[in-house]
Amino acid sequence: MDFFFYPSSVAVFGSFKEGAIAYEILRNIVEGGFEGRIVPVNPKGGTVEVAGRTLQIRERLDEPVDTAIIAVPARIVPDLIDEIGPLIKGAVVISAGFSEVGNEGLERELVERARRHGVRLIGPNCAGIFGVHGKFFGSFEVRVKPGGLALISQSGAFGGAALAMGNDEGIGFSAFVSYGNAADLNESDFLEYFASDENTKAIALYIEGVKDGRRFLKALRYASARKPVIILKAGKSAGGARAAASHTGSLAGSYEIYRAAFKQAGAIEVEEMEELFDAAKAFEMYSTAGKRVAVITNSGGPGVLATDKLERLGLEMAKLSDETVEELRSFLPPQCSVRNPIDLIADADYERYKRTIEIACKDENVDSLLVICVPPIFIPGEEIAKAVIDANCAKPVVVNFMAGELVREGVKLLEEHGVKNFPTPERAAKALGWLSLR
Amino acid sequence: MDFFFYPSSVAVFGSFKEGAIAYEILRNIVEGGFEGRIVPVNPKGGTVEVAGRTLQIRERLDEPVDTAIIAVPARIVPDLIDEIGPLIKGAVVISAGFSEVGNEGLERELVERARRHGVRLIGPNCAGIFGVHGKFFGSFEVRVKPGGLALISQSGAFGGAALAMGNDEGIGFSAFVSYGNAADLNESDFLEYFASDENTKAIALYIEGVKDGRRFLKALRYASARKPVIILKAGKSAGGARAAASHTGSLAGSYEIYRAAFKQAGAIEVEEMEELFDAAKAFEMYSTAGKRVAVITNSGGPGVLATDKLERLGLEMAKLSDETVEELRSFLPPQCSVRNPIDLIADADYERYKRTIEIACKDENVDSLLVICVPPIFIPGEEIAKAVIDANCAKPVVVNFMAGELVREGVKLLEEHGVKNFPTPERAAKALGWLSLR
Repeated sequence: MDFFFYPSSVAVFGSFKEGAIAYEILRNIVEGGFEGRIVPVNPKGGTVEVAGRTLQIRERLDEPVDTAIIAVPARIVPDLIDEIGPLIKGAVVISAGFSEVGNEGLERELVERARRHGVRLIGPNCAGIFGVHGKFFGSFEVRVKPGGLALISQSGAFGGAALAMGNDEGIGFSAFVSYGNAADLNESDFLEYFASDENTKAIALYIEGVKDGRRFLKALRYASARKPVIILKAGKSAGGARAAASHTGSLAGSYEIYRAAFKQAGAIEVEEMEELFDAAKAFEMYSTAGKRVAVITNSGGPGVLATDKLERLGLEMAKLSDETVEELRSFLPPQCSVRNPIDLIADADYERYKRTIEIACKDENVDSLLVICVPPIFIPGEEIAKAVIDANCAKPVVVNFMAGELVREGVKLLEEHGVKNFPTPERAAKALGWLSLR
Repeated sequence: MDFFFYPSSVAVFGSFKEGAIAYEILRNIVEGGFEGRIVPVNPKGGTVEVAGRTLQIRERLDEPVDTAIIAVPARIVPDLIDEIGPLIKGAVVISAGFSEVGNEGLERELVERARRHGVRLIGPNCAGIFGVHGKFFGSFEVRVKPGGLALISQSGAFGGAALAMGNDEGIGFSAFVSYGNAADLNESDFLEYFASDENTKAIALYIEGVKDGRRFLKALRYASARKPVIILKAGKSAGGARAAASHTGSLAGSYEIYRAAFKQAGAIEVEEMEELFDAAKAFEMYSTAGKRVAVITNSGGPGVLATDKLERLGLEMAKLSDETVEELRSFLPPQCSVRNPIDLIADADYERYKRTIEIACKDENVDSLLVICVPPIFIPGEEIAKAVIDANCAKPVVVNFMAGELVREGVKLLEEHGVKNFPTPERAAKALGWLSLR
């Protein structure tokens, strides 16, 4: 499927009037810096301006391309596939109007035509795809920063919202695929593909239901054995399952069966959209973490909140070794607490954080660190961010810099160095919780 | 206690060098627009420049003021109280170095001196207070927008972080008090006070432990009978309780006892810091909501997620009346779902949202509405924000505009009209969950 996510050439079919879907996709591809050939196609011909470039619109596709992105009326899609089938490897059908509105026949026709030419299909009725490391933004959704998360979403709108929110959360993406009606390729195919994609460190999956449970379980087990797979299953409650049935036509089935399958396959199930982001952030940074956590903080309250959450999640407050306690005592002011959580108190500076992180890190009773920082009173938060960045520690370090505008610069600095921030102590604790499940 | 939260004059004691605590508090008071008299006091005299104003520093307090804010070394605080006692009604003692570091004697001395003069004390070892509607920002913490939430925090740093994060979350505050060691006034006093404060619509309380459980239960019951009291209890787990003991000296006691007390008193307990914000936002807008929710969305997936969460929380998907369904059918495109969740699909515009909200609102099977909006494709999100604002509906409407930058303008518009946004469907559902507990 590299021709989808790392294409060397792409054709876009549809209307190139400003605001039209095909135009928006073309714009995203051009603005995203795609380096391969870009071929807009519309029988009316003409030209289209995007991002300061003028592109010739072909009246028909007359050269081979890896992937076609199709946003033309549903009823003409099968014929188009027939026409361009010999020239393309894959087609992403954005167009709606197939099985999701009862046109099963048209969708079958589409699949048959594609099969005839050996063309693989994504969609129809989907929001498109991104291959972020190939600078290929083949969707009208907001572009994202490169990173390690592949997002597979049954719901296009959920996917689009998640991409935009992911940008805010500091998530980096390797790929995005909205697979719509899954007439040909489905969640299982993408799980298998991203399991082997070298730019993908973790996979996030939004599903309402799957068509072939046995195949899904196999693909999930395969992918989970290779990298973390985070799943948000919608349609868990009775009402949610009914809503899912009317949304994607998914027979959600018994949630208990899904849940057991996720667990059996070794996937990480999250409860909420926000948790999907948090787990993704954690797994973009680390592949696993042990259960014994050292909490380092410059404020007691947040340290207590983190402790509560860690223990509630079944993690443990690491019992610091005598050596560690002694070493901490040797340089920390007497008001600091050297029990875990280690409270560096309000005037903690770069040196105090950095040394403490390094000392706790080499304690063999400690598997991972949760570092909390409320805005320091006498120094800028960036100093503490630097301490986290500079500290020599090979174990997972999860960070909670809290307080909005007051730590904005520090958080930015952390992110520039690949350290993702969790905005509350509890969310940081949950991140370690998911890491401990791998 | 109006002299604390609506003072007509205030004296600040400490160092007025830039960056010093007393200077920062003075700056906050001046910049915050306090309209009463402001008297900086330091035996060295001189002047201090803040926000373009030059203030004379008095060598001693020589006129009556409502409240003194004290940030001088701990050991001289009792004598200072003796000196200024006849001139003040209340003192906020920021200074640390009392019982929290083992100086119980000094703290007892402080309280005795204050009692002798009939002066009420907040602190010591606290971060100060805000009376937001009196434009009185008597703390070094970040200033906040006026609104309905009174935040009472045992932990100063937690309080400070919560204020800054509250700004980001669009929370409006009536007051803030960090009460530190609670040598005189404590959480129970503030609960009772804010229960009667007309600018306070909801009270949020962060506690690790309380000294007098019986009194606390009484105060909590009193306050909860008047307005929503949201509690975040830290030190719930065994490790958390130990951490709390070393932080605030709180004997956290059995969490089960606290939990039962909260419930018995009718308070709203939240699990996490983020939930404290969400509950506060909900209760700033509404005092209660019934259990039967209508979900309105322009995207299926988020509608399913909201449904899942609502049902998990014990709320119900409202069964829309035949009349409602018929009325919706009469103008909505046939692809829209008129079951609950009502799916207005991707091209939903101002009119479609507004009419649907109004129709669902007058259905007597509907207690409250959850309105979801993913970025509309063909129109700006502000249009949907306007629909929510303009819709004529007297029932609680909780809103989830999702997708970061793409809905920023819409969310801003909502907030300008007092509609607070919840960033995910699940957080919006939880907001309704808390409202249903009152």
